[in-house]
Amino acid sequence: MKRPSGRAADQLRPIRITRNYTRHAEGSVLVEFGDTKVICTASVESGVPRFLKGQGQGWLTAEYGMLPRATGERNQREASRGKQGGRTLEIQRLIGRSLRAALDMTKLGDNTLYIDCDVIQADGGTRTASITGAMVALVDALAVLKKRGAIKASHSPLKQMVAAVSVGMYQGEPVLDLDYPEDSAAETDLNVVMTEAGGFIEIQGTAEGEPFQPEQLTAMLALAEKGMRELFELQRAALATE
Amino acid sequence: MKRPSGRAADQLRPIRITRNYTRHAEGSVLVEFGDTKVICTASVESGVPRFLKGQGQGWLTAEYGMLPRATGERNQREASRGKQGGRTLEIQRLIGRSLRAALDMTKLGDNTLYIDCDVIQADGGTRTASITGAMVALVDALAVLKKRGAIKASHSPLKQMVAAVSVGMYQGEPVLDLDYPEDSAAETDLNVVMTEAGGFIEIQGTAEGEPFQPEQLTAMLALAEKGMRELFELQRAALATE
Amino acid sequence: MKRPSGRAADQLRPIRITRNYTRHAEGSVLVEFGDTKVICTASVESGVPRFLKGQGQGWLTAEYGMLPRATGERNQREASRGKQGGRTLEIQRLIGRSLRAALDMTKLGDNTLYIDCDVIQADGGTRTASITGAMVALVDALAVLKKRGAIKASHSPLKQMVAAVSVGMYQGEPVLDLDYPEDSAAETDLNVVMTEAGGFIEIQGTAEGEPFQPEQLTAMLALAEKGMRELFELQRAALATE
Amino acid sequence: MKRPSGRAADQLRPIRITRNYTRHAEGSVLVEFGDTKVICTASVESGVPRFLKGQGQGWLTAEYGMLPRATGERNQREASRGKQGGRTLEIQRLIGRSLRAALDMTKLGDNTLYIDCDVIQADGGTRTASITGAMVALVDALAVLKKRGAIKASHSPLKQMVAAVSVGMYQGEPVLDLDYPEDSAAETDLNVVMTEAGGFIEIQGTAEGEPFQPEQLTAMLALAEKGMRELFELQRAALATE
Amino acid sequence: MKRPSGRAADQLRPIRITRNYTRHAEGSVLVEFGDTKVICTASVESGVPRFLKGQGQGWLTAEYGMLPRATGERNQREASRGKQGGRTLEIQRLIGRSLRAALDMTKLGDNTLYIDCDVIQADGGTRTASITGAMVALVDALAVLKKRGAIKASHSPLKQMVAAVSVGMYQGEPVLDLDYPEDSAAETDLNVVMTEAGGFIEIQGTAEGEPFQPEQLTAMLALAEKGMRELFELQRAALATE
Amino acid sequence: MKRPSGRAADQLRPIRITRNYTRHAEGSVLVEFGDTKVICTASVESGVPRFLKGQGQGWLTAEYGMLPRATGERNQREASRGKQGGRTLEIQRLIGRSLRAALDMTKLGDNTLYIDCDVIQADGGTRTASITGAMVALVDALAVLKKRGAIKASHSPLKQMVAAVSVGMYQGEPVLDLDYPEDSAAETDLNVVMTEAGGFIEIQGTAEGEPFQPEQLTAMLALAEKGMRELFELQRAALATE
Repeated sequence: MKRPSGRAADQLRPIRITRNYTRHAEGSVLVEFGDTKVICTASVESGVPRFLKGQGQGWLTAEYGMLPRATGERNQREASRGKQGGRTLEIQRLIGRSLRAALDMTKLGDNTLYIDCDVIQADGGTRTASITGAMVALVDALAVLKKRGAIKASHSPLKQMVAAVSVGMYQGEPVLDLDYPEDSAAETDLNVVMTEAGGFIEIQGTAEGEPFQPEQLTAMLALAEKGMRELFELQRAALATE
Repeated sequence: MKRPSGRAADQLRPIRITRNYTRHAEGSVLVEFGDTKVICTASVESGVPRFLKGQGQGWLTAEYGMLPRATGERNQREASRGKQGGRTLEIQRLIGRSLRAALDMTKLGDNTLYIDCDVIQADGGTRTASITGAMVALVDALAVLKKRGAIKASHSPLKQMVAAVSVGMYQGEPVLDLDYPEDSAAETDLNVVMTEAGGFIEIQGTAEGEPFQPEQLTAMLALAEKGMRELFELQRAALATE
Repeated sequence: MKRPSGRAADQLRPIRITRNYTRHAEGSVLVEFGDTKVICTASVESGVPRFLKGQGQGWLTAEYGMLPRATGERNQREASRGKQGGRTLEIQRLIGRSLRAALDMTKLGDNTLYIDCDVIQADGGTRTASITGAMVALVDALAVLKKRGAIKASHSPLKQMVAAVSVGMYQGEPVLDLDYPEDSAAETDLNVVMTEAGGFIEIQGTAEGEPFQPEQLTAMLALAEKGMRELFELQRAALATE
Repeated sequence: MKRPSGRAADQLRPIRITRNYTRHAEGSVLVEFGDTKVICTASVESGVPRFLKGQGQGWLTAEYGMLPRATGERNQREASRGKQGGRTLEIQRLIGRSLRAALDMTKLGDNTLYIDCDVIQADGGTRTASITGAMVALVDALAVLKKRGAIKASHSPLKQMVAAVSVGMYQGEPVLDLDYPEDSAAETDLNVVMTEAGGFIEIQGTAEGEPFQPEQLTAMLALAEKGMRELFELQRAALATE
Repeated sequence: MKRPSGRAADQLRPIRITRNYTRHAEGSVLVEFGDTKVICTASVESGVPRFLKGQGQGWLTAEYGMLPRATGERNQREASRGKQGGRTLEIQRLIGRSLRAALDMTKLGDNTLYIDCDVIQADGGTRTASITGAMVALVDALAVLKKRGAIKASHSPLKQMVAAVSVGMYQGEPVLDLDYPEDSAAETDLNVVMTEAGGFIEIQGTAEGEPFQPEQLTAMLALAEKGMRELFELQRAALATE
Repeated sequence: MKRPSGRAADQLRPIRITRNYTRHAEGSVLVEFGDTKVICTASVESGVPRFLKGQGQGWLTAEYGMLPRATGERNQREASRGKQGGRTLEIQRLIGRSLRAALDMTKLGDNTLYIDCDVIQADGGTRTASITGAMVALVDALAVLKKRGAIKASHSPLKQMVAAVSVGMYQGEPVLDLDYPEDSAAETDLNVVMTEAGGFIEIQGTAEGEPFQPEQLTAMLALAEKGMRELFELQRAALATE
């Protein structure tokens, strides 16, 4: 088996995490998984949604979008269609759940964090890149909250780092971090969200052609874990710089 | 550990599959997983969506809804809100993908199957009940297509039966087929869609509280497989009657 | 003249009113007028719409829907079309006005009743079946309000029972309770909502072909009154059981 | 009983029908029922809706609107709310059904007539004024179709004139053509659409307070018939001028 | 160069401003620029939009619409399309900005003025007619506010009168107040909003064909100023009558 | 007068035009006017909108958007609000008109160009940056069309280069290319679109506070012309590189 990308089966694409990518947001990251490029911002607003009022906890919500020409064929702009598609809603719900797992909401105070992930160029794996990049933007936004005195330094809402990667079965073999040509031809596509400590936050696997078998699942999850270790390292490196 | 339902950890709720539940649809099933009740219909229309025109294959699409008072608190009717929510779209996309896996679209001819799953009473597991029940409605609709001569008896589009069940971690232990009180308190919720031959079509696992561990995943999948064998048996029994 | 249904001109279809049909709603009824089957629920929420705030009275509002395959041809789901059609809005406004006539809003306290009528199988007369069945669900919901102490037993908001039936001119003769094949071929269609005491709450008559004459109107209303007596009897019988 | 308007119980408001009110439409009428003023236009487009394609007949459809400040309190503009309300849809469906009764669609050829009724000032009875005025605009539009040669003069689609008026029970007595203060205080409101020959096209009666009785219905219909004779006379007079 | 309208290059169409055109609004004007006819109403509501709460100032907002058959070809009703088009939004934003320039919001108190401009017949220049007519309706509405005691007579929010006119390049020459046939054939279209004192509130010029040159802009603006003097005179004359 | 930015009155911000910014679009440019950053893509699709079918000409249409956190405060995502706001529609209509002026549509063949301008960071002047950058993306897309043979090299649809800049009155003096702090405090804001040959395509001037005077307009336009010469130089330089 040879991957279209020429990568080894267990090899991530070149990953880049650029902090402070835009100026206004409390956290702003450009994350690149090869040719997939996503701007992830974390914004802070005081107040919480109605269903949490008076419960002494904060909230995090996520939205996802794609520029119309992020893809090979132009997609109609969702704002002009008048609604977000099912794929968009599915992805932004996944991002929101994943990043909420990183936080202890009771330590966030009466604040809401908005995570916006906007794909400016797509080449497969936009949801996993979004989660991985937005995690870094989230850490930056928490630092701003601390500086503003909205949360105490000694009482950080951050419970654990979270990252995500896709794995799949390609020509019968498990491969890590599929790009678009690989994803289109893969038999199975599995998105995995994990914590630094190695626990699963979310797994979503779909057989595109033939059903996948338990032992394939095990092999794919092992690859995901290997990639995840590298992603956490890359997040840490990005956050280590000033 | 004692389940709120009093069931054994590996015990399904009482399952009932009532065929020909309503009169007009080519396939119409009332599926009950305990107190969860879903009307599943399969409708046939000639023609295919634009993106498949002229490719000599058929299509299957699914929609999901809940009556406003299917739940403990009344939910606003999506038709009057003016849009389907993210949860609805996520579920109907899952139902659609799962049932398409049951078919060989190239043998369906120039036909589209519409699967409608409408929850009239909800008590957890509506998506897995929907898939399991709609599979039976789909088989009935294919029989109608054969009778009408739209597809050949010797050339059935049915590749394999598909069913779905939820499993989860409840008070640290894996349990099968969670009802609503169990689901609300579960640490992890995992929906599994499988084929009769034991392959996975889809797995979607979410940590609601603590991350879940690989060995918990393995245990949950084993439970799912056990439940699945029973569900396929129940589908066969339902289809065996006249 | 022979009715397609074989019924006598003044004969209702077999009517069944099943209480406590689903579990969560304060009142839940499955009403069947022959092959027309509607789930009617009555839900109670505390509070009233803004335009009634502080006026010391309650409110009742109704919504109506049809499962996509309740009919011979599948209808597009209104939730996915993004709006309710004119027919739907017209019917739910009629149901709301009719049931509000049953209540003394000043005795309802600061509560809103939501009536949901969802047609699971349609064979003509869905709006009249909805009103007749929802009336029973409403009585059950009021009993729940009394048990909860939200309204006083001695001070019931229930003023009068309300029911509805359709009549029409079919091949030049007045007939009672038209089913779909009769309705499609009728010259005139008249929906009548009445009180137990014999007063009219609403009449809506439409000439589908030739205009109808005053004496035909008189004849149709007489038939409606006859049917109405039987419907009130059926409501009472349903409510008499525990 | 004294009417707020000072009119006799069987007295219409001053009615004015001004043809050729605006320049572009094939038929354009300003109709005034006292202070209720509606611009009714009839527009012709070639072609028919999809469901009528190839059936050799035409179609008529109606839309209704109100300027935001046609009423005592400003109403939000439906175009900016993003949808037409239930009352609007109910009224425009009534106008459409009523005017379709005036035509033999098989003689209309492959044409669609659009009736637009826009209320510029409202004082009760906007739907009945709309039908009465739009009927005149429709006749003018048919004359244009004849001139253009789109329909044959000897083969007119016009079957019969149609008009509409409201009647009601006010302080226990039947009154004709209610204005807004009367309508707000009326116990019953009944809209009647008739043909010149005295047949009913549509009756819609609603008890606003107490139910109404059969003999009240009879009395109201007699008043409506009296008013209708005057309205047909006014339509004829308007059409008699060049 | 001969204008299709036969007017001199610097000649306005016949302008008519009819006050108190409809009954309910605090200010109501029918403005006619030749065959362009617009109903302009000014409505007063107490309270201000959220973003101005507690800032001790009022607000003015404008909406614009066209009856479907105001034009040569029928346009789809925006209320039934479910959204206002870009042209509509652009025009109503212009009307709002223009009329806000007439007022000192800090003297308006806690009130919002709604300006509604509804075109009943269009023949070019609907936005400039709307501004010119709505200005008069606004003055009338302010008088009502004074009578009601909502604002002090000695403390009028009216800073200056505002009017608007279009100019354009037609067959190489500047012309004033284009009607539809002229506008369709013009090389440049320029809308100008000015104050009585001769200052610009807004200029919007668009080259429809060839770019326009600075000296053409100067010539068009001179024409606009000439027309504006006449429009202010017409506004004053309209307001001078009782 | 000292500009907040410290620039001279007639000084542009640092402008950067980066071609081939993303991979998929036929033309893709990142344009930066200081801290304002816009991704402009030009996409080609064969076919034209319905109103141009069979007329032997092409079309260009533009859409504009802002990432939610492109600004100091997060704006709600238009895709999730379900509609584009008035400001967005106004800007995208301006971009479309401006770039259509650059082309001879009759030489474009049966093709539609989609211009997408997405603001990733806003600091004033997003619409003028969009036009200036999209012009370069458009030239690149035309080159692709030529390479594909869809248009002839000898028969280019490009008539003229177009660029845009804002000018304004700030503290009583005309200034060029306002950034956000300047724009917020300016008395007048004027957007100018011009051709290389010095003609105007569009001018849009708005008095934010006091009306502006003809001599101020003249001064602002002179500044705009000066800036425009530099912008055309920058466009040429960007296009000169390989």
